[in-house]
Amino acid sequence: MRTTAARLEQKQPMDFGTNVWYGATLDKLKSHLIEQIDIISSYPERDAKSLRRLLARRYELKDGNLIITAGTFTAVNVIARIFDRKKSLFVTPCGGKLIEGCEASNHEIVLSGEINSLSELDFTGIDLCWMANPNTVSGKQYRRKDILDMVDSHPNVTFIFNITYGNYVLDDPLKPSDMGKRSNMIMFSSVSKSYNLPGLRLAYIVAPEGIGKVLQKQVASYSISTIAQEAGKYIFVHPAQFVIPLRKWLRNAEEFRSTLAAIPEIEVLPSNTPYFLIKLNVGDGRELARFLAEHRNINIRTTDDVCGLSNQFIGVSTRSSEENSLLVAAINEWIASKVK
Amino acid sequence: MRTTAARLEQKQPMDFGTNVWYGATLDKLKSHLIEQIDIISSYPERDAKSLRRLLARRYELKDGNLIITAGTFTAVNVIARIFDRKKSLFVTPCGGKLIEGCEASNHEIVLSGEINSLSELDFTGIDLCWMANPNTVSGKQYRRKDILDMVDSHPNVTFIFNITYGNYVLDDPLKPSDMGKRSNMIMFSSVSKSYNLPGLRLAYIVAPEGIGKVLQKQVASYSISTIAQEAGKYIFVHPAQFVIPLRKWLRNAEEFRSTLAAIPEIEVLPSNTPYFLIKLNVGDGRELARFLAEHRNINIRTTDDVCGLSNQFIGVSTRSSEENSLLVAAINEWIASKVK
Repeated sequence: MRTTAARLEQKQPMDFGTNVWYGATLDKLKSHLIEQIDIISSYPERDAKSLRRLLARRYELKDGNLIITAGTFTAVNVIARIFDRKKSLFVTPCGGKLIEGCEASNHEIVLSGEINSLSELDFTGIDLCWMANPNTVSGKQYRRKDILDMVDSHPNVTFIFNITYGNYVLDDPLKPSDMGKRSNMIMFSSVSKSYNLPGLRLAYIVAPEGIGKVLQKQVASYSISTIAQEAGKYIFVHPAQFVIPLRKWLRNAEEFRSTLAAIPEIEVLPSNTPYFLIKLNVGDGRELARFLAEHRNINIRTTDDVCGLSNQFIGVSTRSSEENSLLVAAINEWIASKVK
Repeated sequence: MRTTAARLEQKQPMDFGTNVWYGATLDKLKSHLIEQIDIISSYPERDAKSLRRLLARRYELKDGNLIITAGTFTAVNVIARIFDRKKSLFVTPCGGKLIEGCEASNHEIVLSGEINSLSELDFTGIDLCWMANPNTVSGKQYRRKDILDMVDSHPNVTFIFNITYGNYVLDDPLKPSDMGKRSNMIMFSSVSKSYNLPGLRLAYIVAPEGIGKVLQKQVASYSISTIAQEAGKYIFVHPAQFVIPLRKWLRNAEEFRSTLAAIPEIEVLPSNTPYFLIKLNVGDGRELARFLAEHRNINIRTTDDVCGLSNQFIGVSTRSSEENSLLVAAINEWIASKVK
C-alpha cells in the first residue's frame, strides 16, 4: 500500500487527454462556492428555473426551450428516452457513451463511417441524427450554413447536435438561437466540461418548446445540486472570467501540430480546435498511452471509449509550448524504441 | 425591488415543514468540502464505485446490490422506468412526485386509501407496491417482521421501500441487509435528506443483483457530482458526526404533541417519528400555512404535494421546546381568529 507521503509525491499527470482549456483559472468561482457552502443544506430548485431563465435570456429563447441536466450523459439519456426504439444515425467518430445511452432506450444504431462532406450521409429510414459540431473527438467542424441546410432539407429527421466545443473554434459555431422556428433540431452542451468543471455535472439542452416539455418530464425533479446550479449561474453572470484565449491557443496548436507532423511514423489529422487526432503507423494507441503514463506521467486519449476509430488513433489537446515539446520528445522516444 | 439590506434583514424562517434533524451540525463536513473544492475540476467516478463499495461493506451486501443516484427522485424514476407500464400500488399518504415518476413511465396507478394494517392491502393484479417505512409524510411505521412477511407471501409483487427515515424511529427499521436472498424487494434511501444536505442530491438504491444491473444501466454515467460523492464518503466514514440524538428528540416530540393535542380544534395523528400529521377541524392547511408564513415567519408542510390527504391536514416536525411553543401559540392564535 502506498503511504500518504508517497501519494503526495506523485505529481498530477500532464493531461493531454482531456479537451478542457488547461489554463482555466477558477479561483474566483471556487471562492464564491466556498462562501456559499451552506447551500448544501438547501433544497435545489426543482427544475433549475433560475438557471434556465438566465440561459434563455442569454440565448434569446423561451424558458421552455431550456432543460438543465446533471451532465451531458444525462442529457443524452433523456433525449434518447423520448425517442424510444427509433433509428439513430451517428456521425463518427463519437463517444461510446452516447451510443450506450441510445441502446438503453432500444434505438437501432447506424454509424456514418468516414465521410468527407455532409452530403454523404444517408438518411434512408433514419429518425434521428446525432452529431457533435465541432466533433468532440476529432475537432472537425462542418460549416454552420451547411448544417442548417441539412436540417432544413430533412424535415422528417430530428437532428441532435452536441455544441459543447463551439467556443473552441474561430469559424461561426452552431448557436442555441439557430433552433429558431425549427422543429427538428435539438442541441445540447456541457457547461461544466468546457470550463474545466467536470466534477460539477452540468449541461443544458435546447429544444423546441413541445419537445422541451416532454424532456423536462423525463428529467428527475431536483436532480441538479444547489452547488452546480450556483456555479452555473456564476459562470453565466461573469462570462468575462471564463473567456478562453482562443487565438493564442490555436496558434500554439498549429505549432504543436507542425512539430508532430515532422515525425514520419505518425499522421496528424485536420482539426478546427486545439484538440486533434493522430494516426500511428507503428504500434498502437494503447501501447503508447501506457508508455507515456508509466514513464512520463503524461495522459493522452485512447479510442477505447470512442466509436468509429481503431486503436491506431490517439487524441491529444494542446497545452503550453514547453509541455507540448515534452510530449513530442516522448513520442519520438517511443517510436525510436519501436522501429529500432 | 427589495434592496440587499432588506433581504439580509429577513430572518431564515423557522422550518417545521421539513423532516430533517434541525440540530445537525455540518461544520466539519463543510470544512472538508471546502478543503476539497478542487475536485470540481475532476471527473467523477462513472458509477460512484468507491461510494457503492463503502455502502456495500457497511451493509454487508455486494457492490452490485448498490446503485447511487442524484437524489431519491432520480432513484424513483429509474426504478419506475425498468418496470415500464406496470400496475403500481402506493401506500398512502405518499409524495406526489413519487407518482409523477411512475406516470412518466406509464404505470397504472392504484392508491391504497387509508389502511389500519398491512393485511388490508389488496394485491389483486398488482405488479409493484411502493411504500415508505416509516411513512415520509405521517411518520407511521409498520413492524419490520410484518413487512417481511408481506414481501415473502407475495412473491409475484415487487416491493419498493423508501427507508430514508429508518434512523428516526426506535423500533427496528427495515435495513438494506433485509434484502438478503429476496428477489422481490428493492429499497431506496436519501443520504442527503436525513443529514440535512438536500442541496447535494445523493441517494442509494438496494436491489437484487439482477435488477441492480438493469438499474445501473438506466442511471446516466457520471451523473453524481464529485462533491456529492465526496460528501457521501465523508458521512459513511465518520458516522459518529451524524448521529441524531433520537431519544431526546422523540421525548420533545411527545411533549410537543401533548401540548398540541390539548387544542380542541385539531387532532394530532399517531407517528413513530419526530414529524407527524395534524388534522384541522377549522379552516384548512393552506390558510394556516399562509398565516404562519406571513405573520410568524414559520413554515409548515401542506398537503399540496401529497397524495391521499385532503387540505385539512398539515405536517410538522419537532424542533426545540422554545420553537415548538411558538408554533403552538401561533396555531392557537389563528384558531381564535377562526372561531370567534
